[in-house]
Parts: sequence; C-alpha cells; structure tokens
Amino acid sequence: MSGNTFGRLFTVTTFGESHGKVIGCIIDGCPPGMYLSEADIQPELDRRRPGTSRHVTQRNESDTVKILSGIYEGKTTGAPIALLIENEDQRSSDYGNLGEIFRPGHADYTYWQKYGIRDPRGGGRSSARLTAMAVAAGAVAGKWLHEQYGTTVRACLSQLGDIAIPFRSWELAGDNPFFAPTDDVSLLAEMETAMDALRREGDSIGARVDMVAQQVPVGLGDPLYSKLDAMIAFAMMGINAVKGVEIGAGFDAIAQRGSEHGDELTPDGFTANRAGGVLGGISTGQDITVSLAVKPTPSIRLPRQSIDIQGNPVTIETHGRHDPCVGIRAVPVAEAMLKLVLMDAALLNRAQCGDVQVATPKIAGPDISVR
Amino acid sequence: MSGNTFGRLFTVTTFGESHGKVIGCIIDGCPPGMYLSEADIQPELDRRRPGTSRHVTQRNESDTVKILSGIYEGKTTGAPIALLIENEDQRSSDYGNLGEIFRPGHADYTYWQKYGIRDPRGGGRSSARLTAMAVAAGAVAGKWLHEQYGTTVRACLSQLGDIAIPFRSWELAGDNPFFAPTDDVSLLAEMETAMDALRREGDSIGARVDMVAQQVPVGLGDPLYSKLDAMIAFAMMGINAVKGVEIGAGFDAIAQRGSEHGDELTPDGFTANRAGGVLGGISTGQDITVSLAVKPTPSIRLPRQSIDIQGNPVTIETHGRHDPCVGIRAVPVAEAMLKLVLMDAALLNRAQCGDVQVATPKIAGPDISVR
Amino acid sequence: MSGNTFGRLFTVTTFGESHGKVIGCIIDGCPPGMYLSEADIQPELDRRRPGTSRHVTQRNESDTVKILSGIYEGKTTGAPIALLIENEDQRSSDYGNLGEIFRPGHADYTYWQKYGIRDPRGGGRSSARLTAMAVAAGAVAGKWLHEQYGTTVRACLSQLGDIAIPFRSWELAGDNPFFAPTDDVSLLAEMETAMDALRREGDSIGARVDMVAQQVPVGLGDPLYSKLDAMIAFAMMGINAVKGVEIGAGFDAIAQRGSEHGDELTPDGFTANRAGGVLGGISTGQDITVSLAVKPTPSIRLPRQSIDIQGNPVTIETHGRHDPCVGIRAVPVAEAMLKLVLMDAALLNRAQCGDVQVATPKIAGPDISVR
Amino acid sequence: MSGNTFGRLFTVTTFGESHGKVIGCIIDGCPPGMYLSEADIQPELDRRRPGTSRHVTQRNESDTVKILSGIYEGKTTGAPIALLIENEDQRSSDYGNLGEIFRPGHADYTYWQKYGIRDPRGGGRSSARLTAMAVAAGAVAGKWLHEQYGTTVRACLSQLGDIAIPFRSWELAGDNPFFAPTDDVSLLAEMETAMDALRREGDSIGARVDMVAQQVPVGLGDPLYSKLDAMIAFAMMGINAVKGVEIGAGFDAIAQRGSEHGDELTPDGFTANRAGGVLGGISTGQDITVSLAVKPTPSIRLPRQSIDIQGNPVTIETHGRHDPCVGIRAVPVAEAMLKLVLMDAALLNRAQCGDVQVATPKIAGPDISVR
Repeated sequence: MSGNTFGRLFTVTTFGESHGKVIGCIIDGCPPGMYLSEADIQPELDRRRPGTSRHVTQRNESDTVKILSGIYEGKTTGAPIALLIENEDQRSSDYGNLGEIFRPGHADYTYWQKYGIRDPRGGGRSSARLTAMAVAAGAVAGKWLHEQYGTTVRACLSQLGDIAIPFRSWELAGDNPFFAPTDDVSLLAEMETAMDALRREGDSIGARVDMVAQQVPVGLGDPLYSKLDAMIAFAMMGINAVKGVEIGAGFDAIAQRGSEHGDELTPDGFTANRAGGVLGGISTGQDITVSLAVKPTPSIRLPRQSIDIQGNPVTIETHGRHDPCVGIRAVPVAEAMLKLVLMDAALLNRAQCGDVQVATPKIAGPDISVR
Repeated sequence: MSGNTFGRLFTVTTFGESHGKVIGCIIDGCPPGMYLSEADIQPELDRRRPGTSRHVTQRNESDTVKILSGIYEGKTTGAPIALLIENEDQRSSDYGNLGEIFRPGHADYTYWQKYGIRDPRGGGRSSARLTAMAVAAGAVAGKWLHEQYGTTVRACLSQLGDIAIPFRSWELAGDNPFFAPTDDVSLLAEMETAMDALRREGDSIGARVDMVAQQVPVGLGDPLYSKLDAMIAFAMMGINAVKGVEIGAGFDAIAQRGSEHGDELTPDGFTANRAGGVLGGISTGQDITVSLAVKPTPSIRLPRQSIDIQGNPVTIETHGRHDPCVGIRAVPVAEAMLKLVLMDAALLNRAQCGDVQVATPKIAGPDISVR
Repeated sequence: MSGNTFGRLFTVTTFGESHGKVIGCIIDGCPPGMYLSEADIQPELDRRRPGTSRHVTQRNESDTVKILSGIYEGKTTGAPIALLIENEDQRSSDYGNLGEIFRPGHADYTYWQKYGIRDPRGGGRSSARLTAMAVAAGAVAGKWLHEQYGTTVRACLSQLGDIAIPFRSWELAGDNPFFAPTDDVSLLAEMETAMDALRREGDSIGARVDMVAQQVPVGLGDPLYSKLDAMIAFAMMGINAVKGVEIGAGFDAIAQRGSEHGDELTPDGFTANRAGGVLGGISTGQDITVSLAVKPTPSIRLPRQSIDIQGNPVTIETHGRHDPCVGIRAVPVAEAMLKLVLMDAALLNRAQCGDVQVATPKIAGPDISVR
Repeated sequence: MSGNTFGRLFTVTTFGESHGKVIGCIIDGCPPGMYLSEADIQPELDRRRPGTSRHVTQRNESDTVKILSGIYEGKTTGAPIALLIENEDQRSSDYGNLGEIFRPGHADYTYWQKYGIRDPRGGGRSSARLTAMAVAAGAVAGKWLHEQYGTTVRACLSQLGDIAIPFRSWELAGDNPFFAPTDDVSLLAEMETAMDALRREGDSIGARVDMVAQQVPVGLGDPLYSKLDAMIAFAMMGINAVKGVEIGAGFDAIAQRGSEHGDELTPDGFTANRAGGVLGGISTGQDITVSLAVKPTPSIRLPRQSIDIQGNPVTIETHGRHDPCVGIRAVPVAEAMLKLVLMDAALLNRAQCGDVQVATPKIAGPDISVR
C-alpha cells in the first residue's frame, strides 16, 4: 500500500538510496521448497550492472547480492527472503552542489515539493540504481515460474533513438553491449558511433524495449481492475524513464480494423497474436508481448536552464557518471518487472481458481510478433 | 486485492454483468461533508450512455443512477456510497448461441479457461457495459477534486482509425457524437462517412484518446512502485480494449535527445511539458497528459474463424448491438479513470505528507501539449 | 484498505445504514463453479433476524436476501457476488431527536468527532443491523469450506450476564431463543426470567459466546502478522459490542504452567487442546475454539446523563426497539465472521503453499474444550 | 497482504530468523521531516533485550540497531527506513536435534505441515526474537505520535501466574525486572521467589499485561471492519504466546448491566472509561486500555511427550536459553504494537478526514481504569 512494495501476494519491498551504504529488499510470499542461492540471482544483476561497457555509466559497482534470510538447507522456507547489495562506489561529492537546485527532467523538483526534503546524492531514492533490487527479486520470481510452468521472459532493445533494430534472435541480444537482438555488424557499428557521438556532445537519447514472455499459463489476470495487461502497464510505467507502454499491437491498433486485429482461433491455435497474449485482461497462453518507450537520460553535460530552491534561475551541467541511453540498462529491468507481475498473478490465480494448468495454444507467425 | 476493486484509499468495488438485472458499485473512503446527489453523477453517465447517436451501440439504456447509501441530508457521511443502475434493455436471446463458442478478440476464451464457466450473455462480466460504474464513481471523485483543488479532467478523440483530429478546443468536444475537439465541418463529415461505411461493411476501427488533467496538486504519486504515472497506466490499460498508454511525449521520447526532452525550469515555470506532468512518479503541477490506443471492437458482422468449447472449428458473425468504434465511448471512461487515480493519490498523499498545497507552475506552450 | 471491506482474497465490502432503503454487500474472490442460491444464505439470516422471540428487538424485518450478480446457471462464475436486503421496517421517526445528542456507550460521539456529520437514524452505519451482511457473506464462505474440507463452524451462548450455561450439545443450541446449548429446563427458565426482568427494568446485560470450528485444514494462517488467531481476533473484536476475545485457554493461560498448557502430541494426535487449534499463528487441524465477551446493549430505557452537540448536559431515555442482550444475536454473527476468516486464510494458503490437505489430528477430551 | 507486513499506510515488513546472521525490517510510509536516529530506537530495544536479569533468557544479544536508509541530514525523507540488528549469540547447535521433532506448544508442527520445511534453529521465523523488530519500528511510530499529538503508550505486568500486581504508578514499572508497576517490596520478593522456583523446576508460567495509551486523538479507527479495537486485537493476538485480548472492561462486561457499563458524558467529560477509549470502533480521546493474556513459555526442561516427523513417539526436554515467563518481555512488545496500530490509524484518518484534532475528554477515575 505504501509506495515501496510491489505485488500483492508475491511482494517485493525495497529500501535504500543511490549513495547510501546499501540497497536491499524483502521478498515475501515466495512458495516454500524451492532451491535458491545467490548464484540464481547474481547473473541477472550482472546484466544490469553499471560499468560493463563504455556505453553505460562508469560507476563501479560489483552489485554482489547476499541472501540474508528465508533459506534453510538451500531451500526457500516460505519466510521472507531479504536481499542486500552494498554500494561500493558511492561518491556523494559528485553531487555536492545539487541539493539546492532542480535538475530538468529529474525528480528533484517533485520530491522537494512532496516531501519538503530530499536526499540529493545521486538522486537518492529516485535513482535508477534502485532497479537493481527489482532485477534481483525478478530472478527469484523467474526461477519459480520457469520451474513451475517453463515460462521464460526476455527483453531486447528494438530501437536506439531513431535507429531501428530488426529482430534476428534472442541469443544475439546477449552478445553486444546494447542488448540488441542482432548480429548485423554495420548496424552495431552505427549504434556504437551514435553513442560515442552522444557522449562527446554531452547529450543522451531515448530507446524502445521489446519483451516477450513465453509458456505463460492461460488464466492469469483478475478482471475487472487487476487485469494482467493493467498490471503489466503498472509495472512498466513504474520503471524509471518509461513514458509509454504497449501490449500486442499497441498503438498500431488505432488504424487497424476489427477484421484484421482480432486474432482468429482454429483447432491448431490462434492464427496471429495482435492481442499480445491477453484477452479481457487474462492471459491466453500465447506469447505476452510488451513494448516500452524509454526517455533520454535527463542527466547530460550540455548546459540547461533551471531554478534553485529559492526560485532563482540557474544553469546546470551534470558531470556525474550517467548512461547516455538509460534505455539500454532498462532491458533487464523490464524483464524482471514482467516476471514479478506474472509471479504475482500466478499466485493470485491459484488462490481463486486452484492450481493452474499450462495451456499454450500454438500460434502462427514469427518468434516475436509485436511489431 | 481481488480484481473488482479499484483504488487503495478511495476504493470502487463493482459488480454486475452486461445482461443481469443491475450493475452497481460501492465507493469507500470518500471524505465526509461533500454535497452529493444523483444530479452530480447522471450527466457523466449520459455522456457514456449507449444509443445517443447512430455511431454507437443501439442498446437502449437510460443508465439512471441511484445512490443507495452514504448520504445524509444531502452530504457524504464518510460511509460507503453504493450506486445502482438497472439494466433495462438486456436481451440475453441475442447471445443465445454464443455460450459454446469463443468470439475472436473477446474474453470468451480466457474466461472459460480461467474460471471453467462463463456468463456468455453480452460478454457477462467482461462487457464494456461495466465501465458505466467507473464513470459514475469518477464523477464523485471529480467533484471532490474540483472542489478541493480546482482540478479538471477532460478527454477527447484525437484519432479515428487513420483520421487524425487536430485539437481546436475542449468546448467543441461536446458538440459532436465523436468527442472530437473540433468544429471542422469537413473533418466531421469525413468521420461520419467512415463510420457509416464501417457499419455497412460490418467492420470496426480503432481510435486514439487524449486526455489532460489541469490544476493537479503537485506531490501526488508514491515512488517507487505506486508512481502516479504507473497508477495512470494501470487504470488506463485496464479499460476494455486499450492496448497502449503514453504519458507526456510517450513513444516520441524514443527519438528525442536529453537536451530536447527534459523540460527546463525558469522562475516563471516550466518551459515545456514533455514530461506530461509527472517527474519521478510524482505530479509536477503541470498539466497531466495521457494518450491511449483503443483497439477496434472485436464484435463485427464479418464472418470470422473460431472454435467451440470442444475445439471444433466454427464461423462466427456477431449480430448484437455494438459500437463500430469502441474508442468513442472510451472517452468519458478514460476521464473517469484518471479522476479515480488522482483522487486516490491525493488521499494517499495527505496521509503521508499532510494536506496538499496546490502549486501549478506556469507552463509555456498550447493548451494541450502532448502531440 | 478502506474500512468497509473485510478480507484480503475473499473480500466482503458492505454498504447501507440501519434506516436506509437497503443494505448490501459485494463478495469478491469466490472460487468459480460452486452452486449457490438464496436458499444457501437465507437460513443463516433467519437465525440472526430480529423479531424472532420476545428476547430480541421487535423490529420487523424479513431480511430476505437477493443475489444480484456473479451466478450463471446456478453456479458462481468467479465474478463478484452482490447481495441485497431491503430494510422493511425502518422508522426514522423513532430517532428523530437523537441527531443532536450523544447516547452513552454508542458510536454517536465518535462518528460526530471523526466525520463531522452522522446519520442518526437507528445508529446509521454503526448499527448492528449491518451484521446481517456479514452473516450472508459468511454463509457463502461456510458453504465453500464445507464442500472443500468438511469444515463446520458453530457458536453458542455460554453465559448470559452472570448465568453460566454449561455445554450439553450443539443440536440443543437451535432449540431455544438464546442459542444456549442446553435442554436444562430450569436453566432456560432462569434465563427467561432474567431477560423479562431486564426488559421491565429497562436495562440490558452482557454475554459470553463460545465457538468452535471443526475439520479445519492444517496450515491456515500467515505468520508473522497475519496469524490465524490474529485474524480471528480482528474479526471478532470488530463485531459490534465485543470487548474481549480468547483463543483456546485464553485468559486461563495466565495462571497455567508450561507443563500444563502446552498440548502434548502422541502418534494418535494431541492429548488436549489448550492452544485452541492454533500454534505459531497456523491452524493445527484441531478444533479452533474462540470465546467472546459481548457488552450489554447501550440503548436502554433507564435515564442516562449525556451531552448534546453543543456540549450542554441532557438526560436520555432510549425508547427504540432494542435487544436487552445483544450477545444473543451475536451468536450467528460470530459464526459468520469465523467462516470469513477461515475462507480468506484458505485461499491465501493455497496461493503460497498450493492446495491444502486436510489433516485433523485426533484430540482427547470433550466436544468443546475451551472452558 | 503477505504475512510479514504489518500496517496499511505505516507499514513494517520484517525478515530474519532467530539464528540467522541478522534480523531487520523496512518501515514504509513514515512522514518526512522528523528527526530520527538510532538513539531514538535503542532505548526501547534495551527494555526488551534478553539477558538483562536472571528472570529472562540468558541469550547474550546487544540488539544494536542500525538505520540503513530513509534519513538525510538527520531527518526522515519519506523514503523507506530499513533497520538492521545483528544476531550475535546464535547457537544453532543448541537446537541440533530439534529439526526432526515437534516441541509441544510450539510452531514446529504447524510450520512443518504448512510449508513442508522449517528452520528449526531456535524456532526460526516463529521465534519471539523477531519481536525486536516490532519494538524498533514501534519506537519510530511512538516518536511521531508523541511529537504530533503528545500521545504516550505504556504497558506493565499486572499478573504473574496467580500473583496479582496492583497498579501503583507507571514510573515504578521501570525499576524492577518484571515491568511491575509497584514498589511493594514483599510483592516483588514473592515474584522473585516464584520465578526462581520455576527455573529450578524447569517449568514456566503465564502472565497478564495491561497497557494504556494516553492523549490519543479522537477519531482514529475505520468502521465497519478496520475498527480501532479490531486493529488492536489483531496486533495483540499476533504477538507470540498471546491467547486473549480485552479492551476496556473486557470480559467483565459480560456480567455488567447497560446502566453500569455505558460511560456517561457530562460537559466535563466522560464519567468513567469502561469502553476502554473506543466506541463504535473509533477512539473517543479517552485513555485506550488493553489487557493481554500471555501463555506460559512452551520451552521447558520438564520432559514432555511428542512425536517426530515420522510420527514416532518421543520425549522432549528443552535445554536452550528460555524465558520462564515470556509475558515479562512481552511488555515492551505490546507497547510497540499499540504504537504501530495508532500510527497507522492516524495516517488513515487524515487521508479520509483531513488533519486530526486532539480532543481528550476529561475522565473521572484513576490513572489506569481497566481493572
């Protein structure tokens, strides 16, 4: 109910600030009896970790996760699972002068107005650093979903600024620093060049992230108001810098006709997946397809106009360590949030409807069918 | 927690089916002491009501709302407010043969899989008819917000299929059956022609809805996970047929640079509103701008392939009374859902932060600045 | 979250006032596929109904319940189930002068202070009349629990003022107007005499209610904070006029030794049930035993000192239709609330731990083992 | 919703096991701008700490609390406040053989049945050690309540087994190891003698705890179901080993008449406080008086019958470090839980009803008026 808990039955409650000593979370409601260790979580954190290429923030964090509770003899006990990550490279001095001014595009102004006080060190609570805990918790949810139903959740970058990235395969998305699902050498070079130019110019750019959940049990989602797609939209729009969310055909549905949009059924399954795997707020068993718009990082070196807390005009140039395209590292975060939504919906579904059967209707069409 | 309640502190719990005797809701958490009567609610329902033009469903419902509780001597008492609408024109026979087959693009298949049973009469619980209760509850929330902060929430149709509708003024949106904010006679004629053609062909079309909340108090929204934009996305994606949600610049943010996207501040206010009135998940006091993609109505006369509950192939032609563009009547529903989100966030904010001050930074630019 | 919803997964949201036109509730989260009709609910309402003997209020209500939604072809569909009862014998005039004064022992003073307004007609929202909806919803929960696990929940009056009522059998509790589990003619006569004297004197008396749930699945309850006994205490203390709750040995545990209190286990089951069927907040499978203290009805004919809303001293004699011992009609209400707690806990348990197995350890001792 | 979070708007989510490395909690929803440091919390923990006298467990824990987040320049920021305590004296070996057997009166059997796995080291999650986090969080709530309204919450031991402890003054309750509000030397000696005898015999005893909250704002509590007394009963029955809860007159109300029980009002205030400060589920502004029954510690040296996880009979003698009367250390825990309830209710009240005014009607009678 308070803002720092995500989920209803599989809940994740986070704490910590960008430049505090630690960040952490408590996962509550995890079913008992699942093997779980740090080794299940760390690889997901490593994907989101800063400093892995020159295209993301150079803050140096190992993001080593520790499980503090909820495990006995290697298995979950049904008790809350606390996770902790130490902040190793906090440099509050980087942000020394930022406490008094409002950075454009940041939460500075709104936190100040809402709370009358704010921790300015690296954005404090509003920093994207906190998404690390979502990734950690998402790894736990993802493990359970995979063991229980074979569900997989994967995301990739499908657009970097105005550079479209045609989908080739999921495997390729792990082979480059952009999570781009491609091995097109010239395209990758174009992206590198664009990123290097941005860094030189001190500017930033937006991105599009696509994601797909496969082998999702049919029946997840609770109409009217806790529809699965509504929960997904809630989770996705809650990720830092996200400004738009689409399910299935998304905004393309505006110009589609009913005779084109509504996926037909045959004894062999659906003939298409413009619905994105959700009908009436409930999963169909088809792939769940989601697409996000991520805004450009607001922290840039170029001078910007703003005001200080007394209302005087100031000019800001942000020299901290930032991602020129925060959309890149949003990829593993989006995956994690989708896992959390599906996990929570799965538990809620078995509360009301008993144990879930996986029904995955065959669908026509390519591996990723959103766009 | 169960799916039929919306909100955390200002809660709306609905019940009823498309072709049951009544539909209704209970509003809980409304502050005491506000004058409230049916006359405050009915006008909003009249805007959403079916049968008001030849371009929406011809189902004949007066949608007359009754307040059953929670009022004493004309004022709210803090007790739950129950609202009831009788279904006057339910015709279960229209749907007699639909219980055994799954209509493409509908919730039939998923309700059947999830619950093992479903009320097929007019879509039962999954019918857009239930949005009437959201509109009714939204009217209550809207009244309180307006009295308390002067907040107004307005939506309009900005695109009908591939016909874009340039914004002229809010007043005009009430003067035509499309909620189109225009008095461009040839454009309105083009829309009428397109709709008539669809009806003849037995097909349907999608739409875009834009909305703006003005005079919103600064400070609404609870990071990390109950961000105001996340709650808005949740509410909007939960409306029947919505497939995409944008806040502020939305998907345009992908190709924007940080130097362009981040709204600068001056002593006179923000210089633009690409953020859509939300930074870090908290309202800025600027206009909140939201945009929706609504899919084409799945119920169409054109024959479509499907299966029955035994998995046998069937062909369906839907002859009930349907909206060729469900996006039109989504306009007042979207307004209502936004009111509910803001109301709930306002109560939550005053719980943690005490009474809210309205700070509405001046903004540069036109009345509606999303697109 | 708002105060008028009970439960987390099986939720009951009520509305209505003592002297409004109707009272009602919405049950959300009921599993689909259960046969349900008014005939399953009405008998429970008839037990709580006013006017059934000269020892309870003479208000004349048939308390006829109607199901408005959530049923298709006789079965629950998983959609919300709305229940409605018309108030047939509201007499607002009985309470005409009570709007300006605070009745001692009533909610008048606190509603006025909290909300700044109150519906004085028959206590408005604070009336025990609203417990009818708990009874109705409890009947639905009880049906599911019985079908699923064979669970039964029964309550009786074990003390009327200072008259103790030794337990003989559950069947007998239905044979007299006091829900007394006895056929001791002289004891029943003593109770009748005591009640008649109270009515003549214009006074009232407290009571003790005992209840037992049998065939409860082991494993219900969610430590640390949503322990089953904590949920029971919450539900019971929330019933109008309840001032004390005990589980198992209750207050007798104060003077017990550990060697006496802790129920031993043998291969044949527990040797006793001082725990009252709950250990560590989780059901053991033994009988769940609960005991309540109900205060005397505050509405009495004897003159009492109070103040009006201006703070002036007044003398009150309450002449409405009241129960001289509200504890009597609390019996079916307590049963219903216990059913609601168990139902909710059962759904929550199967969310986290999967489907529940019934394990009912044999226990030594009598049928009812609390006192 | 999951069991390890307490509260709705001021939430406390705990984690940890008796013999893990750490225990901790996250407080969410604390209003911003309050000065807070470890020095505000540690004194309350010191009162609950083990090893402070020979009459409580000899486990050696300093219970040193650290604040990990949510504070900037000494003040709360509105962000979650994480608290951590290291377990310094965990001795898992003490409990080596207990993993396979169920200790009578403990949660061993039920955790095993519910989760299919349990951490046996010192009771794992079900240990009373976890109440330390409630005490820590309660200190934060108590500070806010005191600053905002002048509210104080105090508890004491009023009965040790069958030794009644007449109330003399609150100050005295801090001067002896029993939290007994007395300086009666012979009574204190009698208690010491009784405790020493129990320890020698290897047995344990129950206790009664009384508590009073003063200067409580009028208007807290949300009928129908989130009544203040219901929330108190929920919190209290959720404390380890509590078997009964009373508000105001409690079980004495059974034999009281309406003319005696209902507290009359005069222009000078209430004439008595048999209601215990709550009418209709809402605080009256009088003292809130609550009484608890705490069962005897189940861990005793005397041999007890039980079974192992295969169902074979075993005899158990528990030799760990235990409190012969767990009721003693329940005193600061009960205080803390009452603070958490009041804090949460205060935030909820100002959400719906705006900022609270403190109205504390004068009452006749002594300082503590329950019994």
